[in-house]
Amino acid sequence: MEINGVEIEDTFAEAFGIQVSRVLVTAATKKLAKIAATEATGYGTSVIGCPAEAGIDGYVPPQDTPDGRPGYTIMICNPTQKKLDHELLERIGMGILTAPTTAVFDALDDADEKLKIGFKLKFFGDGFEKEVEVGGRMVNSIPIMSGDFLIDSEFGIKKGVAGGNFFILGDSPASALIAAETAVDAIMSVEGTITPFPGGMVASGSKVGSNKYKFLNASTNEKMCVTLKDEVEDTEIPADVNGIYEIVIDGVNEEAVKEAMKEGIKAACTVTGIKKISAGNYGGSLGAYQIKLQELF
Amino acid sequence: MEINGVEIEDTFAEAFGIQVSRVLVTAATKKLAKIAATEATGYGTSVIGCPAEAGIDGYVPPQDTPDGRPGYTIMICNPTQKKLDHELLERIGMGILTAPTTAVFDALDDADEKLKIGFKLKFFGDGFEKEVEVGGRMVNSIPIMSGDFLIDSEFGIKKGVAGGNFFILGDSPASALIAAETAVDAIMSVEGTITPFPGGMVASGSKVGSNKYKFLNASTNEKMCVTLKDEVEDTEIPADVNGIYEIVIDGVNEEAVKEAMKEGIKAACTVTGIKKISAGNYGGSLGAYQIKLQELF
Amino acid sequence: MEINGVEIEDTFAEAFGIQVSRVLVTAATKKLAKIAATEATGYGTSVIGCPAEAGIDGYVPPQDTPDGRPGYTIMICNPTQKKLDHELLERIGMGILTAPTTAVFDALDDADEKLKIGFKLKFFGDGFEKEVEVGGRMVNSIPIMSGDFLIDSEFGIKKGVAGGNFFILGDSPASALIAAETAVDAIMSVEGTITPFPGGMVASGSKVGSNKYKFLNASTNEKMCVTLKDEVEDTEIPADVNGIYEIVIDGVNEEAVKEAMKEGIKAACTVTGIKKISAGNYGGSLGAYQIKLQELF
Amino acid sequence: MEINGVEIEDTFAEAFGIQVSRVLVTAATKKLAKIAATEATGYGTSVIGCPAEAGIDGYVPPQDTPDGRPGYTIMICNPTQKKLDHELLERIGMGILTAPTTAVFDALDDADEKLKIGFKLKFFGDGFEKEVEVGGRMVNSIPIMSGDFLIDSEFGIKKGVAGGNFFILGDSPASALIAAETAVDAIMSVEGTITPFPGGMVASGSKVGSNKYKFLNASTNEKMCVTLKDEVEDTEIPADVNGIYEIVIDGVNEEAVKEAMKEGIKAACTVTGIKKISAGNYGGSLGAYQIKLQELF
Repeated sequence: MEINGVEIEDTFAEAFGIQVSRVLVTAATKKLAKIAATEATGYGTSVIGCPAEAGIDGYVPPQDTPDGRPGYTIMICNPTQKKLDHELLERIGMGILTAPTTAVFDALDDADEKLKIGFKLKFFGDGFEKEVEVGGRMVNSIPIMSGDFLIDSEFGIKKGVAGGNFFILGDSPASALIAAETAVDAIMSVEGTITPFPGGMVASGSKVGSNKYKFLNASTNEKMCVTLKDEVEDTEIPADVNGIYEIVIDGVNEEAVKEAMKEGIKAACTVTGIKKISAGNYGGSLGAYQIKLQELF
Repeated sequence: MEINGVEIEDTFAEAFGIQVSRVLVTAATKKLAKIAATEATGYGTSVIGCPAEAGIDGYVPPQDTPDGRPGYTIMICNPTQKKLDHELLERIGMGILTAPTTAVFDALDDADEKLKIGFKLKFFGDGFEKEVEVGGRMVNSIPIMSGDFLIDSEFGIKKGVAGGNFFILGDSPASALIAAETAVDAIMSVEGTITPFPGGMVASGSKVGSNKYKFLNASTNEKMCVTLKDEVEDTEIPADVNGIYEIVIDGVNEEAVKEAMKEGIKAACTVTGIKKISAGNYGGSLGAYQIKLQELF
Repeated sequence: MEINGVEIEDTFAEAFGIQVSRVLVTAATKKLAKIAATEATGYGTSVIGCPAEAGIDGYVPPQDTPDGRPGYTIMICNPTQKKLDHELLERIGMGILTAPTTAVFDALDDADEKLKIGFKLKFFGDGFEKEVEVGGRMVNSIPIMSGDFLIDSEFGIKKGVAGGNFFILGDSPASALIAAETAVDAIMSVEGTITPFPGGMVASGSKVGSNKYKFLNASTNEKMCVTLKDEVEDTEIPADVNGIYEIVIDGVNEEAVKEAMKEGIKAACTVTGIKKISAGNYGGSLGAYQIKLQELF
Repeated sequence: MEINGVEIEDTFAEAFGIQVSRVLVTAATKKLAKIAATEATGYGTSVIGCPAEAGIDGYVPPQDTPDGRPGYTIMICNPTQKKLDHELLERIGMGILTAPTTAVFDALDDADEKLKIGFKLKFFGDGFEKEVEVGGRMVNSIPIMSGDFLIDSEFGIKKGVAGGNFFILGDSPASALIAAETAVDAIMSVEGTITPFPGGMVASGSKVGSNKYKFLNASTNEKMCVTLKDEVEDTEIPADVNGIYEIVIDGVNEEAVKEAMKEGIKAACTVTGIKKISAGNYGGSLGAYQIKLQELF
């Protein structure tokens, strides 16, 4: 199968279940909302080493937010509910409450459960907190140095999907990089999904365990390393490919992840020099979801 | 004392010791270096609730980096050496190694000790890692999907200073906000310092403990909350002040923090509507450093 | 009338007819499309002194463009068709054709006339230009150094509206500035409108002619200058106002301009410290359109 | 000659004389200064079709500006003094005076002559303008709606150099694009130079006149068009090259342009996939300056 002359490999992305939250951060201006959203979702590429997987889902104009101010929806994800509760509390409390002019609203549809994040944070008000009505909902208003911080009491979580992915193989590292960037641009418009890695792009693919160092849980996937193409016998890199980036997607459900993969792949295939789209899996043995590339189209 | 008509209060900022690292992240372009630096320093406003205090120190043009590519110095800080080791390993391993086209170099002068961050990360190469020379130093080269990731073996740490600070009091929240932004702009040019809060600005000051909720370690500083000015009897907010932001600074040493405070305050005082500069302290009982505002000038 | 406690003055904005074009610029990535759109719309605040009024209308995700790549719609406006033809030719030819990876499509509905912009630019191909099909339309493909530049043959123009406006009066210059910024954020989501001044904001209002210098066509509107409030007897600035910004809007029609004014004013009124919204007019003697503020809501 | 394995062709860039101005724009914050600098330098890629060549020279921190606020130096250039006078007046008057919180200072060393830009603009104050002292210099203070606009009376101009250039030839369009971007990053740190094209990069090289269309002054340089490589017999593109970008540099003098070319080329040569650096000339028949690539190093 080909899109725009680019081969779509007959393979699948293997994805996993994860607990997902979705939070709307508004602020006085779009730039200020971005500052808070960025701080709260940093250090959140993969739960392999980060305390959460986190990213910006999308921009919401003032016309569409409860308080009539510009905002960003962000997603914060963790395999366990307990750790997600901790991450929501700290990422909102340390990264958004502390940021200029922010307010925070629950933005998850079809929640499995609710976590009392705002209920807990309101005690920071030391008795001066109160309830106010904003856009038809009652929220906590906590006096802080620069004004009042508004936050919903409860934030929904649900079982979502982590690790949706595809590989972009290009004739040079730069081709794959530009294609990865535009794939992320496209996915930014798919509601309910994030690309948690830096700038949405993954420069380093890994395999489970290590051939040489037994103490490692994960190591470089040498079969997909472009600088090892001539050195590794069973390389999986085609002769005309010299650059590879991966896009990893977390979403509120499998449909959203599929839509993000579809739109990301289509966008990547518009870039000159892209040769092939592939995906990462573990033979189907690890993850609950198998998303076949060719069935997306 | 006045600067540009703004009162500089006769008080001091109380600051603390902290373990500090300083890391140079380079990439193919300035934008790509910024992406990696931002991811690695996110979720890092204060160790009260974040796993580290982290931020961007400054931009380094290609002319001045070991590999001739644009870069950013970042600082990652934690009170304990053990936790700092963990944070460096994960923030570099998950937030920079995974980012497009990056390389990482130690950029701390006068280190007290060295942590084997690159030495540990190199095993990700699963035997394909090697040593290469870059700009006169030997570094580890780890093959990843998109190319080779370069990193120094060891990264210095030293005892630095956390919690340098000042308050900007303005006639409106927006005045204080614009002044805070330009203060951060000025501090960005002071080498060896970061402003770890979102966008460098703190919207929420806190006091130790709580008057009402005994289970809290920290709560809002009601005496400095502008919306409580008429409600709290012993408010410390002047009548003509309606907006307050705090700037918090971590630095490689007390001199750098002082320089940052000085330049930040001077810049803040250029903004129309700023009435007063103050600072936060605990009466001198908690922190090792007392930085008097008026002695900065 | 009040919105969120802010007085909406019983006055009207006086607007003018202008020839309007609307152009979609796509590129390999969102950032590259922004670079081209910015270059092509610079030096375009007001035809009082600039060769055109120009700005970015909005972002269009890859999902919604003819070539499946991210893009921005821009608007370029001039009172005369002849000058607009020149501006379109040069701003596209010098500012977009020269920019990395771009393509340009006509994006104006209900055009009064078509200008042969792409038809003229194609000759740059020196005989190597050809026609190709993209997203169901035939476009010119012009070989350039970095690849092929695609452009529609004809671009629609129509009689639109220039000079829709409102004033934001705040308790400090910074309050009005933050409110102006968020007003621009809101207007960015109103299709078919631009705010052509720098960052969308106008720092300097003017009156027709001059009281003192007879050679001037326009001079500062001293009755609305905050630093002259105590000096000018017939100042129009309320006692509690110390900062004023204007938003100027050009649109494809009166409805779009009204919608932009409405959403911009609503957003401005969410900012702490905003006291009043007014608008600029010449008593109805100059412009074809009178847009009453209070009738917008 | 090779740098980092990239061939530096034995050729020269042919550059021209041009009248140059250099202006410092400061504002309340770095972002606001950038907004004004961007507006004033837009639509300014080449005087072939634009009314000026213009761009941002560099960032100046608050520590180093006359008014202690962050700023950007910009350069505005035109072959004739009369047109440069017009462009300075309009680009400052329409693009900077109108922008939030700005001030404008002359920043050209060794001027040949002075233009009375601020002297003319001050009449906008309609008699309310006055002189004030800022950082040791007397400047005009013009009351505008949002505050006071400060501007030097006179701005220096001098004979500088336009059209310094080099070509970056890469294995793919994306490689050349990334290399062009980092070259621009490097040149941004060379004082007294701009790269006036969009994002500093030129996607379309041209030749004088046209082979096919006699009415054209310039047309595509088919020998350097990658998509014509197999079609044009006397192509100058090596077999392994599939993407080309040009960097064009204007500077205050030949030394500055040479330094910019040197640093830009060095930076471009750090990017994987770059094969060759060349330059554009007309056999030495048109321009006053011949800058040999190999003599830069």
